[in-house]
Amino acid sequence: MTNWHEVDNNAKTWINEAAERIRASFPKTLDIQTKSNPNDLVTNIDKETEQFFIGKINATYPEHKILGEEGYGDKLNKHAGVVWIIDPIDGTMNFIHQQRNFAISIGIYENGVGVIGLIYDVVHNELYHAVKGKGAYLNDKKIPDLEKVPVSNAIVGISPSWVVENKRFDYKLLSNLVKDIRGTRSYGSAALEMAYVATGRIDAYISLRLAPWDIAGGAVIIKELGGLVTTLTGEELDFLTAGPVFVSKPGLHEQILTNYLQPENL
Amino acid sequence: MTNWHEVDNNAKTWINEAAERIRASFPKTLDIQTKSNPNDLVTNIDKETEQFFIGKINATYPEHKILGEEGYGDKLNKHAGVVWIIDPIDGTMNFIHQQRNFAISIGIYENGVGVIGLIYDVVHNELYHAVKGKGAYLNDKKIPDLEKVPVSNAIVGISPSWVVENKRFDYKLLSNLVKDIRGTRSYGSAALEMAYVATGRIDAYISLRLAPWDIAGGAVIIKELGGLVTTLTGEELDFLTAGPVFVSKPGLHEQILTNYLQPENL
Repeated sequence: MTNWHEVDNNAKTWINEAAERIRASFPKTLDIQTKSNPNDLVTNIDKETEQFFIGKINATYPEHKILGEEGYGDKLNKHAGVVWIIDPIDGTMNFIHQQRNFAISIGIYENGVGVIGLIYDVVHNELYHAVKGKGAYLNDKKIPDLEKVPVSNAIVGISPSWVVENKRFDYKLLSNLVKDIRGTRSYGSAALEMAYVATGRIDAYISLRLAPWDIAGGAVIIKELGGLVTTLTGEELDFLTAGPVFVSKPGLHEQILTNYLQPENL
Repeated sequence: MTNWHEVDNNAKTWINEAAERIRASFPKTLDIQTKSNPNDLVTNIDKETEQFFIGKINATYPEHKILGEEGYGDKLNKHAGVVWIIDPIDGTMNFIHQQRNFAISIGIYENGVGVIGLIYDVVHNELYHAVKGKGAYLNDKKIPDLEKVPVSNAIVGISPSWVVENKRFDYKLLSNLVKDIRGTRSYGSAALEMAYVATGRIDAYISLRLAPWDIAGGAVIIKELGGLVTTLTGEELDFLTAGPVFVSKPGLHEQILTNYLQPENL
């Protein structure tokens, strides 16, 4: 049987070590490469950080699988056993241009169920973390459960890209939502936006294209606080494939799903 | 004749004092009031900070005028003499919900021309400042002049609210822009978004409804670096009335204005 307490401690130790390396990299010139599209810049720090985690996990838990953004982990088509889902730097564009607003994200899943979630905002030295059933924390402080908020008071993390015509989801449904809420934000890091939902800095977060490593850590934290993490039609995520994601406080999730995201609302 | 060096030193001293008060307020419960609409929350800290500045300015420069968000300053219908344009807390919603992503913004204008610009990101201890003709700085570090960037590489600060149907500007023009750029961000503080353009964290910033105090400080800094601050049709701002604002690196400003914002682009 997995010793989750030990796994959690190791994950936190390694995340701190990785963060130290990332901080040390700031003054150096980054060897920026372009991946499949210009939105998806990747740096050597990104790659090195993923390889650092893989080395640690393989040496300590050879039976665990790894799913990582940079592709050095395993190729998985189903969740069996323990899987670490890792984004070494979520918000790479921010990392390059701002040296802030990025995070390390780790979700540790067992047979498809999230057990440990970790998001580390390196620059602000803020570690958001949860173990399923044991509460969620920001550093040493317990995060209170998420409370309901009406649509008219909600601040939603959403990019303007999703309210212009696109192939992924009917932008008119999202446009109507944007018109009715109090305000919007967009930070360019899914992990941080989920951490912000967890701590009440925003109330919900919507993206039409996220990969498992963007959200695996955040999903454990959000669910531990009573929040919801689903597709835009309210289904559970598989944490294997990329797609639309809707993260929200309870109550607000149902309201937005029922009154905005269903096609009959047009 | 105005001793601008002394005015600049005083403004910096007062901004530091105001920031200290704001930092001290974090643990206290904020007495939140609602102004004209729910997007415009205001706190007692906001008001106290404006009154602090007004007290200092009136005592030291009784001949100077003051234009401030909270309305304790002067009612101005034209720029004559020296006018301080002050937003004690730009990004009040962030201040309340996040205790970050807000700034103190001060622009000091003479006969309508910006002379001194100050934006203080209190939490990050980052003071962006410029005196017309003497360069722009982030704390003690000179900020390099803004460089050109093509539309396809640009990260633009813009809220989803401006790419859904609205009364202020043809959202279809902005939708086409959003489709062609590399990415978008939205932080909920015009002053900070201008500071981010100044330092290359984003490349441009567009809003359809900003007041003079949101942008007066940032405009001095951006212009000092070779950037542009205009309406969405390319006209100069009057820094007296609210309206649409387009802040951008040079080159990119002309490209977006010509190829996206003019009605004939539809």
